[in-house]
Amino acid sequence: MKVVVLSGGVGGARFVKGVVEVAGPRDVTVVGNVGDDLEVLGMHVSPDLDSILYALAGLNDERRGWGREGETWHALDSVAAFHGETWFRLGDRDLGLHLVRTEALRAGEPLSAVMARLVRALGLETRLLPATDDRLRTWITTPAGEFTFQEWFVARGHQDEVDALRFEGAETAGAAPGVLEAIAGADLLLLAPSNPYVSLAPILAVRSVRSALERRRVPCVAVSPLIGGRTVKGPADRMLARLAGGTSPAHVAGCYTGLIDALVVDEADADSLDGIDVRAIVTRTLMTGADARRRLAEAALGVVPA
Amino acid sequence: MKVVVLSGGVGGARFVKGVVEVAGPRDVTVVGNVGDDLEVLGMHVSPDLDSILYALAGLNDERRGWGREGETWHALDSVAAFHGETWFRLGDRDLGLHLVRTEALRAGEPLSAVMARLVRALGLETRLLPATDDRLRTWITTPAGEFTFQEWFVARGHQDEVDALRFEGAETAGAAPGVLEAIAGADLLLLAPSNPYVSLAPILAVRSVRSALERRRVPCVAVSPLIGGRTVKGPADRMLARLAGGTSPAHVAGCYTGLIDALVVDEADADSLDGIDVRAIVTRTLMTGADARRRLAEAALGVVPA
Repeated sequence: MKVVVLSGGVGGARFVKGVVEVAGPRDVTVVGNVGDDLEVLGMHVSPDLDSILYALAGLNDERRGWGREGETWHALDSVAAFHGETWFRLGDRDLGLHLVRTEALRAGEPLSAVMARLVRALGLETRLLPATDDRLRTWITTPAGEFTFQEWFVARGHQDEVDALRFEGAETAGAAPGVLEAIAGADLLLLAPSNPYVSLAPILAVRSVRSALERRRVPCVAVSPLIGGRTVKGPADRMLARLAGGTSPAHVAGCYTGLIDALVVDEADADSLDGIDVRAIVTRTLMTGADARRRLAEAALGVVPA
Repeated sequence: MKVVVLSGGVGGARFVKGVVEVAGPRDVTVVGNVGDDLEVLGMHVSPDLDSILYALAGLNDERRGWGREGETWHALDSVAAFHGETWFRLGDRDLGLHLVRTEALRAGEPLSAVMARLVRALGLETRLLPATDDRLRTWITTPAGEFTFQEWFVARGHQDEVDALRFEGAETAGAAPGVLEAIAGADLLLLAPSNPYVSLAPILAVRSVRSALERRRVPCVAVSPLIGGRTVKGPADRMLARLAGGTSPAHVAGCYTGLIDALVVDEADADSLDGIDVRAIVTRTLMTGADARRRLAEAALGVVPA
């Protein structure tokens, strides 16, 4: 069974890992968000793609929740000593990836090609594609003004309420090579339990990707990132409450109108299914460990009979 | 007493440290070689300037002889894992400097201004100036072809004999702001015990710097990098033998014809002063530790009565 997963960063990456473990690495293509990408200290950083890469390779720090395990911070300490910018936490091991990728991008290699090389270098068989090779950036409008995603999320600690989002470059962005082909050839499409507004919407803002999902002939299943109407981490619940008017499964499904056929929701939301217009699959969604993430993946994959 | 020291990397940096300790940090201006500069992993690296900076700040690794003390190599390990270039050894702490400097250079800040900021950030009072803010690169002609300095020195381990040197950009390079003023205002000019061909010649290849030294009205003293006709480290002796026909003090002094008034030579060379046409100052030149480097600095500074 060929599976395509659209995913944001950390939470999505865990789910992706579960899907790969259940469906097999060669049958999964991951399409990752690049709206969070940024330039910092002269380097191109793709936080969501890297979270997925590190999770797939088992290099991620499970406890901290982001970045690499066994990470050190000596380069950034030095940057601080020389009065450089340190608001975006880049670890030493992480830096190596950014240096290699930035050099390749400057030499004209598309992001998708660089990511394919990085994936192969780690011996992985899963395809990890950026939604687009074109520049696409998420901007957040708040009462305090408009910020890039990382300014809002990291530098300001996502404290500002979100009034609107804008995906710079999305109008003209093309899907990265392989994305539309993977969607067209898939037996199942999945939306990871990522933030609908800042992780998945930037992927779906690429017109040809959205259009491919709208024209799908196979099931598309989203996994809600909410448990009992609240996020485990991050601002998805606050954003849903403010932008969609609520945090029920119906509000989550409403982010994907016309794009999904089913929504995986947590048992804690089983009594709040009013108004949902797609099939609800109720299970435990908290990915507390390897078993839990595999069970969640099985629930999503179970939509298509093996 | 105002002192200007022209210096290359590691060996020169030790001597500079001694000069600063004896003459006082505010009265010393160091003019560093940039012919060794390179772009690696998308970053601008100035190995000689950094060796001097680290030595002055006490951050250098005395035992390894280059780079920073307590250095780690996690970023480069990661670069290797992603099949990036690792021939030039960049430590994690060192990387922080390169990131900050590269970003500033890309934003249009001249190298001399960036270095001044880095020096201040470490709380140093000594001025550390690149010979030039313009692009100047040392190329080495060998029987195996022509190489950039670092290709020859690091990647090929300076095994190839040197037939000729070329300083790309030197014809049009101007002295960095402050260099000519410092030379004009100095009471003493010093050439550190660096390699005459690859460390000091690139500085002297900047026409206005050479011309300022030729027109000097104060003594200029070079310190020979050879002990008993041999280098402590590096290829200076082999280069002198091949390019100058010998490794005696006269051969070293011959590299600086018209530019120096005295040469500090080691006791081991006291009996080999034939043919030298400048004053020879005989002392122990091996910088085995803090005391030795101060004594060497005192010998050079002693040319001008306090």
